[in-house]
Amino acid sequence: MSTGNRKNIDDFISKIKSQHQVQLDIDQLYQKIKQGDKASLSKAITLVESTRSEDIVLAHQLLEKCLPSSTTTKRIAITGIPGVGKSTFINSFAQQLVADGQKVAVLSVDPSSSISKGSILGDKTRMDDIAHMENVYIRPTATGATLGGVHLNTREVILLCEAAGYDHILVETVGVGQSEYLVQSMTDIMIVMLLPGSGDTLQGIKRGIMEAADIILINKADQFPKAAVDQTVTDYKQAMHLLASKPNRWTVQVLGTSAFEEASIQSVIAVMKKYFDHVLLNGSYLDQRKLQWREWFNSSIGWATHEVLKSKGIDIDHTAINLNELPPAKALNAIKKLLH
Amino acid sequence: MSTGNRKNIDDFISKIKSQHQVQLDIDQLYQKIKQGDKASLSKAITLVESTRSEDIVLAHQLLEKCLPSSTTTKRIAITGIPGVGKSTFINSFAQQLVADGQKVAVLSVDPSSSISKGSILGDKTRMDDIAHMENVYIRPTATGATLGGVHLNTREVILLCEAAGYDHILVETVGVGQSEYLVQSMTDIMIVMLLPGSGDTLQGIKRGIMEAADIILINKADQFPKAAVDQTVTDYKQAMHLLASKPNRWTVQVLGTSAFEEASIQSVIAVMKKYFDHVLLNGSYLDQRKLQWREWFNSSIGWATHEVLKSKGIDIDHTAINLNELPPAKALNAIKKLLH
Repeated sequence: MSTGNRKNIDDFISKIKSQHQVQLDIDQLYQKIKQGDKASLSKAITLVESTRSEDIVLAHQLLEKCLPSSTTTKRIAITGIPGVGKSTFINSFAQQLVADGQKVAVLSVDPSSSISKGSILGDKTRMDDIAHMENVYIRPTATGATLGGVHLNTREVILLCEAAGYDHILVETVGVGQSEYLVQSMTDIMIVMLLPGSGDTLQGIKRGIMEAADIILINKADQFPKAAVDQTVTDYKQAMHLLASKPNRWTVQVLGTSAFEEASIQSVIAVMKKYFDHVLLNGSYLDQRKLQWREWFNSSIGWATHEVLKSKGIDIDHTAINLNELPPAKALNAIKKLLH
Repeated sequence: MSTGNRKNIDDFISKIKSQHQVQLDIDQLYQKIKQGDKASLSKAITLVESTRSEDIVLAHQLLEKCLPSSTTTKRIAITGIPGVGKSTFINSFAQQLVADGQKVAVLSVDPSSSISKGSILGDKTRMDDIAHMENVYIRPTATGATLGGVHLNTREVILLCEAAGYDHILVETVGVGQSEYLVQSMTDIMIVMLLPGSGDTLQGIKRGIMEAADIILINKADQFPKAAVDQTVTDYKQAMHLLASKPNRWTVQVLGTSAFEEASIQSVIAVMKKYFDHVLLNGSYLDQRKLQWREWFNSSIGWATHEVLKSKGIDIDHTAINLNELPPAKALNAIKKLLH
């Protein structure tokens, strides 16, 4: 046998071995996630947050295992400006859900580039009561501009949490930027938190977000005069009445809330249950999920094109550094040529 | 001659005519923009904001004409939470720049889905002094999630404004969401506005944005005790000192400012001039523009792939509605097949 042949066979064996090894790891990781092992869940999240091509292949293998054949999990977006009391509310809200027998994952979507130094750590301390509960999992997730439009791995993180048995996924985001539109594209319900008194502009909330709201909470009701809270609730009820009705035929609910009153949290849970009963019954829950799936697919096309070209040795990343050429026009020509 | 032939010839002639017509229109539009006609500039912006494929072709034709062979225009990002005084500052800042002989365009990047009803109109009234100046052009620009990662046409709007002779492009955005990272990817300098006294978290500003800052303004200095303003300036100077130095070797400057004091505005302009002298001289101005061009090209790949597939009759939009399949994995397979 020639040295060349021997080398080929050795390569082949080690390739098979490493493929097998990888396969085992992913299977094992999936099993541990299913068993509710938090360390394995965290490990899996780190994997799906990786931008390395090899990791993405593994992440996809894992995620495909996690895809449920049917689901009634609740993906809940919670948005509002800093200071509105999101973390404190979530701390009480999650406690009550757990008391009702649910498993709750809290994902904070932080558009900041440097998460570890951002407000997330501060938030975690405000979630002290739930941080160490067995049926609660808390994790900040990174967003940020990545190649070709795959902006958020929060979607992937949601899938992993659901595979781990968390049936209520709370996705917290600051309600003044672009992130809440992205969050809306991956959740079933949008809860917008406001303070009593002031108008939209003063609260730093854009009208577009108000239009996306399914439930509006006028929070910190305990810290404001009752008349002010009631007036704000009435104002927003009237304002919501003026907006066109939602495609899912849900009537937006407005509630005064305090994170420190159990009855208040219970009323939010009751309204939320009513919402999910409504959308599960009329099919809009599933319709919205399918629409989100399509959007996710669409936004993956750019990334997928990059990946395929890279695997063919076509480094499309380094071709457009001439300021005399229009990047989108140049991209169009490049792709036209490749797909001739 | 058969009726069929006659029809073919008529079609051919009208096609030639309409192509010729379109060509003329784009040329004419470009000429009028170059001459500084604001109505034509607005018309062009509406064209580049269109998502119709035909309009995009025309927009690209127009934009390619607008690309300069060399430039020293100043693209200035101004960010801060609502209430920090961005509009009032811009009103004074732009006036002073115009008095110095510059032409100023003000673009407000609003992540809201419904711009006309958002805070932009409110902002415009706070820019009353500059709204009708000959050398000032004000325009809100829409962002929002669009197909395949082409998120902002603010880039295109900047090019059009520059072609119209505006050499200072102020891009205003709310500093608490994701939009300022997008804005950073299309500007030369980041001005972050804060209020005296409170820390980052209270100001709703993420650390990531602070790291992106080139100039920090502690604004509304006239409304706070001098000691508080000075203390905040000192605090931020020290904080900036702790951060790693910027790739462009610029030392972040921190200033107390008041929009109502000319000397204050002049000092911001002086620091900004110093910044541009610095980055123009050491080449980082051009390096950053080239990097932004590459990012723009990269983020156009997804859109370009969609366009090319659509033109070939492959409707990739409607293939991924099965919740049992992972969208990015499915996109990868679809593109692999197409690029086999």
